[in-house]
Amino acid sequence: MDYLQLYRNIVEKRSFLCVGLDSEIDKIPSFLLKEKDPVFEFNKGIIDSTYKYAVAYKPNIAFYECDGIKGWKSLGSTLNYIKKNYPGILVIADAKRGDIGNTSKMYARTYFENMNFDAVTVAPYMGEDSVTPFLAYRDKWVILLTLTSNKGADDFQYHNEDGIKLFERVLTVSRKWGSVNNLMYVIGATRAEMLKDIRKIVPEHFLLVPGVGAQGGSLAEVAKYGLNSKCGLLVNSSRGIIFADNSENFAKVAGDKAREIQSEMEQYLSRHKLV
Amino acid sequence: MDYLQLYRNIVEKRSFLCVGLDSEIDKIPSFLLKEKDPVFEFNKGIIDSTYKYAVAYKPNIAFYECDGIKGWKSLGSTLNYIKKNYPGILVIADAKRGDIGNTSKMYARTYFENMNFDAVTVAPYMGEDSVTPFLAYRDKWVILLTLTSNKGADDFQYHNEDGIKLFERVLTVSRKWGSVNNLMYVIGATRAEMLKDIRKIVPEHFLLVPGVGAQGGSLAEVAKYGLNSKCGLLVNSSRGIIFADNSENFAKVAGDKAREIQSEMEQYLSRHKLV
Repeated sequence: MDYLQLYRNIVEKRSFLCVGLDSEIDKIPSFLLKEKDPVFEFNKGIIDSTYKYAVAYKPNIAFYECDGIKGWKSLGSTLNYIKKNYPGILVIADAKRGDIGNTSKMYARTYFENMNFDAVTVAPYMGEDSVTPFLAYRDKWVILLTLTSNKGADDFQYHNEDGIKLFERVLTVSRKWGSVNNLMYVIGATRAEMLKDIRKIVPEHFLLVPGVGAQGGSLAEVAKYGLNSKCGLLVNSSRGIIFADNSENFAKVAGDKAREIQSEMEQYLSRHKLV
Repeated sequence: MDYLQLYRNIVEKRSFLCVGLDSEIDKIPSFLLKEKDPVFEFNKGIIDSTYKYAVAYKPNIAFYECDGIKGWKSLGSTLNYIKKNYPGILVIADAKRGDIGNTSKMYARTYFENMNFDAVTVAPYMGEDSVTPFLAYRDKWVILLTLTSNKGADDFQYHNEDGIKLFERVLTVSRKWGSVNNLMYVIGATRAEMLKDIRKIVPEHFLLVPGVGAQGGSLAEVAKYGLNSKCGLLVNSSRGIIFADNSENFAKVAGDKAREIQSEMEQYLSRHKLV
């Protein structure tokens, strides 16, 4: 999927919502535990009730890796389910991988060949040769960590050389490695005020914005400073949607939460004359 | 395993060698492909022939993850084999993970509880709360990426605020998160000249040094600038040992290569009056 197709999907659904599948087995409704693959059954319920309001899904790999072989099976089944039933939706492996070139090549093969993810989140610390192996795949995306939503973002991401913060350097250096068609950036919603400066460096790129909901970021602020002429935003919500209810109604409630967010997003898209 | 135990193992073996198990299925001797688990058989051969000369093994997780469920089984079997047969050896998951707190907690559980690794490599970009969940485990180690061996290290790791480079800031900030008993740093052998300055910031910590061999780093330089009163170094070699020979003799040749490196290391340890 390229930049324009993603934009068309956003316009069609009047939504730039990404649903984070942080499907921790200890947190899913207990009645699902009798199923053969509880995590997959949970994801299926969430997906079927939210797909109308979402343009992307983002399984958080840690929560699957943690369950070992069972977890990787749940992940594979979830990915196949989305690809088969909702083929237009972008599926992001939130893996935060990144290593020297020959090793990143293996991670890229894992997520783009062995599994058919559309995008993978990558950590920038090791620089160009740790990222470019992921960019070698046509119609696949790298989503590079830039300014994250957590408290620890303050430790290193603002390290300032002659007025240029580290996260700004990540943007200016890395945008040469790819294009708006294969490179996005992670910008935490809790840092929405920084989006103004960030948009000066990457006016066109898509930004993946986590941190709305449980982490306290504001969707209104993110839309205000982040929207561009092709939307340019994917805003993620995980826990606020998928764990909104813990009963047999979990899927319906998740769908309601997703629709609420979509409805708010539609207002911002409309205000920016994008729909 | 704590700092002193690691030092005692080094003195006993007269070696600070870590053998990297970057066991790519396309590169292992073809006669092994008829085995049920070729990668595990390969690792077993390498381990049995090198354990006398090594104090640590470091499976590179990308090469296992890339084989999917089969790969995770090979990794599990390899880890169990080392733990059962050579229990004193440190086993490092070279995973380069790191995410917001609730997610890093899952990665820590994966490597320290579900699998019994002694250490895991972690990327520092997301700061304190992305690292501390790994440090919550007794007798386990975080090995934090600091100054890596690849070309891309130049892109961000030297970003300089008032004379303090990013990798130096990673050292000064992170050393407060743990102690010499649970925190090491990755310093690439190709940057050996920087070890002098690095030792001023972390005189006591162990450093995991990749990049000797295939990547061109010099063991002599690393020892000269990096050794401290408790050795303080684990020098990794992967491809130079494990893929030194591609015939039925691969294990013996790997053992010879490991012994050569051990023998050179013994000289440096002796010169520094550590053995």
